[in-house]
Amino acid sequence: MKIAQKLITLKARPRGFFLITDEIVSHLPEIKEFHAGLAHLFLMHTSASLTINENADPSVRHDFLEYTNRLVPENEPYFTHTLEGSEDMPAHIKSSLYGNALTIPINSGRFVLGTWQGIYLCEHRDFAGNRKIYITLMGE
Amino acid sequence: MKIAQKLITLKARPRGFFLITDEIVSHLPEIKEFHAGLAHLFLMHTSASLTINENADPSVRHDFLEYTNRLVPENEPYFTHTLEGSEDMPAHIKSSLYGNALTIPINSGRFVLGTWQGIYLCEHRDFAGNRKIYITLMGE
Amino acid sequence: MKIAQKLITLKARPRGFFLITDEIVSHLPEIKEFHAGLAHLFLMHTSASLTINENADPSVRHDFLEYTNRLVPENEPYFTHTLEGSEDMPAHIKSSLYGNALTIPINSGRFVLGTWQGIYLCEHRDFAGNRKIYITLMGE
Repeated sequence: MKIAQKLITLKARPRGFFLITDEIVSHLPEIKEFHAGLAHLFLMHTSASLTINENADPSVRHDFLEYTNRLVPENEPYFTHTLEGSEDMPAHIKSSLYGNALTIPINSGRFVLGTWQGIYLCEHRDFAGNRKIYITLMGE
Repeated sequence: MKIAQKLITLKARPRGFFLITDEIVSHLPEIKEFHAGLAHLFLMHTSASLTINENADPSVRHDFLEYTNRLVPENEPYFTHTLEGSEDMPAHIKSSLYGNALTIPINSGRFVLGTWQGIYLCEHRDFAGNRKIYITLMGE
Repeated sequence: MKIAQKLITLKARPRGFFLITDEIVSHLPEIKEFHAGLAHLFLMHTSASLTINENADPSVRHDFLEYTNRLVPENEPYFTHTLEGSEDMPAHIKSSLYGNALTIPINSGRFVLGTWQGIYLCEHRDFAGNRKIYITLMGE
């Protein structure tokens, strides 16, 4: 049994849902050394999320954005955390609804993902900077 | 420390929330060999979810379904991913809101669950096929 | 590689979102013995949640509560699980939307958290009792 940890940085993106499977894999040559195990991806921010969803049709990411903007509207009259912009408090809520971390199985040196599964970065801020993901690989 | 991995298949179900704790346990005789550890259940699909909730009263699962259908309505005018049926894009969104994976503690060869906790399969499609879960047990 | 497990109890709280990072850490002197690994926090209840969000401004927790009460309203006419109080079925749904468990990286004997990240207990019942969290530390 062994463990590997590393911090990776994703470039800044506008508000939206982005397929980042290949980008994550490109940062993880270490995964090839694991026959079996788990990969844990921990986004170190409170206004973005990681989730797993459809990896083929960009219209899915478009619709996620449109839906999510309506699910958590801006400028709600009861919001009190408003100093950092109208999309800031909604971004915090969206972050927790989708979650900031993923655990993905590893087998034979690769992520185990269904045919249609990809890793999404969900950026909920309009002008966020780089995003950091702390990755832990554990297995044998 | 050791690790065990296996792929299990759940029979096709209609749209709804289903208690599958016993079905999962029946697929995992290996768990008895783990004194302490973690079990990771990874649903390999993007239009269904796994979650943990109340294990006793079927009315809870009924209400989950009714609520969730209203939370993510079909036929929203801004949806563009519509070729696979009116419940397809909502199913993708529901999948990410509840999440496709669970990590459950193992102690003394069994899942550690609260008295009222059970594992739910949340099927968001009307006519889905079998559903595959990739399970990783890690511990000692 | 090693593993440590323990059950901790949090005092009863009213409905709301509470920052519990320091309380969790105070229960985990064992974490200092882990150079690298993962901490898994599993809330053993179906009407409360654990999530990670902003750790500085109490207005964020206020707004989470107000939003969440609107996201899952009480007394919906289609709710059938109503015997335990009008906030009970909404509490079950909120529990699954935010999730009942967290996995957090460990490095150098401490949680790896972003500057602004803290652990929230989300209490969805009005008069819940103590809440139990089953914690698993795994690593080296």
